[in-house]
Amino acid sequence: MPRGGFSGSISSPRIDVAIDMGNPFLNRTVDGFLKIGAVGACKVAAEDTFDCLHRGDVSKHKLEHMLKKMCKEGAYWGTVAGVYVGMEYGVERIRGRHDWKNAMIGGALSGALISAASNNHKDKIIKDAITGGAVATAVEFINYLT
Amino acid sequence: MPRGGFSGSISSPRIDVAIDMGNPFLNRTVDGFLKIGAVGACKVAAEDTFDCLHRGDVSKHKLEHMLKKMCKEGAYWGTVAGVYVGMEYGVERIRGRHDWKNAMIGGALSGALISAASNNHKDKIIKDAITGGAVATAVEFINYLT
Repeated sequence: MPRGGFSGSISSPRIDVAIDMGNPFLNRTVDGFLKIGAVGACKVAAEDTFDCLHRGDVSKHKLEHMLKKMCKEGAYWGTVAGVYVGMEYGVERIRGRHDWKNAMIGGALSGALISAASNNHKDKIIKDAITGGAVATAVEFINYLT
Repeated sequence: MPRGGFSGSISSPRIDVAIDMGNPFLNRTVDGFLKIGAVGACKVAAEDTFDCLHRGDVSKHKLEHMLKKMCKEGAYWGTVAGVYVGMEYGVERIRGRHDWKNAMIGGALSGALISAASNNHKDKIIKDAITGGAVATAVEFINYLT
């Protein structure tokens, strides 16, 4: 059972929000959800701010719409990241090795899971799994380069 | 002037193709292009192989179409990755620090550059820059988690 421990800290140069669920698998998933969810929400905020500045009108209705969109997109980005991070960790534990194949398998499983959760057709799920695996592998390779 | 040195090695468990251009900036960009291009091409190959197996018909025409698509998508993935890796390296050298902001700035610059190269409208370029920055930041955060 995850402990209810909670420890949070936000500092300016490094973003660091840590929630201890007492389980490395859950920790990573929640961490991924929160961090990437925040990035997704910021992206929508930046986009909509640009839109408002560009058009020059800011209304209460627009702000409400933006807030709703931030929550929706933040939750989506967070879910995708949480599922992927959890999957990759699980694959690493099962395989007992740390290499780019973890990313590929984790990405493929996440792609399939998210696609299946969106009620997609069987063929679409397999294609999404391939895309997920490819994107995760590409990202893993870029890690080593930067 | 980049030296014309070339050293390549492909081994089964780790993928390792190295081309020495005699310049770290060029090395990274070319490395990113080749590795991520290969991943993109593999993705198309996997997708089309699945399609062929699923439908049960393999023709010469289909194979040609697949090869063309592999080259096209591989080049696109490779270009995106090469531009991003080069940009991130450049930003790191200019800023003199190695943190997630490099990824954000590099991603935004790459998004803007690729969008501008595709002859997009000014607004679209800024939106693509925001998306690029957000995706790169998200990926950078996922790195630290996995």
